[in-house]
Amino acid sequence: MEMSSKLLQKAVEEISQLPGIGKRTALRLALHLLKQPQEQSLHLAEAIKKMREEIQFCRKCHNISDVEVCEICANPSRDESLICVVEDVRDVMAIENTGLFKGLYHVLGGKISPIDGIGPGQLNITTLVEKVRTGVVKELIFALSPTMEGDTTNFYIYKQIKGSDVVTSTIARGIAVGDELEFADEVTLGRSIMHRVPFESSLKNN
Amino acid sequence: MEMSSKLLQKAVEEISQLPGIGKRTALRLALHLLKQPQEQSLHLAEAIKKMREEIQFCRKCHNISDVEVCEICANPSRDESLICVVEDVRDVMAIENTGLFKGLYHVLGGKISPIDGIGPGQLNITTLVEKVRTGVVKELIFALSPTMEGDTTNFYIYKQIKGSDVVTSTIARGIAVGDELEFADEVTLGRSIMHRVPFESSLKNN
Repeated sequence: MEMSSKLLQKAVEEISQLPGIGKRTALRLALHLLKQPQEQSLHLAEAIKKMREEIQFCRKCHNISDVEVCEICANPSRDESLICVVEDVRDVMAIENTGLFKGLYHVLGGKISPIDGIGPGQLNITTLVEKVRTGVVKELIFALSPTMEGDTTNFYIYKQIKGSDVVTSTIARGIAVGDELEFADEVTLGRSIMHRVPFESSLKNN
Repeated sequence: MEMSSKLLQKAVEEISQLPGIGKRTALRLALHLLKQPQEQSLHLAEAIKKMREEIQFCRKCHNISDVEVCEICANPSRDESLICVVEDVRDVMAIENTGLFKGLYHVLGGKISPIDGIGPGQLNITTLVEKVRTGVVKELIFALSPTMEGDTTNFYIYKQIKGSDVVTSTIARGIAVGDELEFADEVTLGRSIMHRVPFESSLKNN
């Protein structure tokens, strides 16, 4: 697309680098930024710049943080013997939103996926293994997506920490609350029957 | 959504102000910006800032421009007696891409739409009427969308310039090239029959 303004063209090119945003959407967004009050667009630019320059990753759990150790790791009321292993920062937010988990997290930063060229070396696995070796951790909860990559990653970590006294568990897989049985896939339904829970305990956890 | 980083939260809030981008997409984009090399995110922020601060609107036609008078208006080979009236900057780009129009443009910046609170006063109509009064303009082509708002705007401008010698025309409305007749709406099909063109001239314009 040939544009009458090189400034606009540059902005459109940069915006269209974002995932899921094509040239046309980028142009629409750029023109929107030109229409709204100048401060608002500058606030956006400033927020992006500041975030990128100043944000840190927690030294302990690799969660996004404004300081060296994130709020969750720094909170003394959380149980440091219980570690929930997640893929990325969004999973931490999702689990935090449930308000039920009181342990700490460990953000891997992805999952092992040879097809995308991601091996264990690119993930935060070494620091997790070290954490387990200190002896403070009693249980590791694998909360990765139930895909082949997720299962592979779980199994890789499991083998790495073998020999330690740490208990490992995965989050329950089954029919989502509110879902209709008839629309569930066979694997999920089959597993949910194999891993059935005592009725009394299902009442307790509601 | 409660986030572990105020910087991230601020960025997500700013990004989600953009049209068509919700909180979840904004978070995905923000995390993408954090994953990619720092310069790339800073380039995006810089491009937005620079565009917003430095871009100008052409003094003559209100098209987006890096200088006071846009490339099109400043081009001496273009016919200044022929003015194409369009709604916004994207329409200029679309018509320029056809490579067929050699006149100048006039960007209104919208169309009269009482429902959105846009009256003639918010559009660049006064400067268009002044341009017509100088006597240089011989023909005005209305190239607004064929909607009620577009037609209203055309008619408003038409009444404003009444009495001058300027010829007014609208872009042809009819069946789009490549469309199937049977799927065309009745109004379009009816108009395309009423405003039929001599077969020889349809050959020439291909």
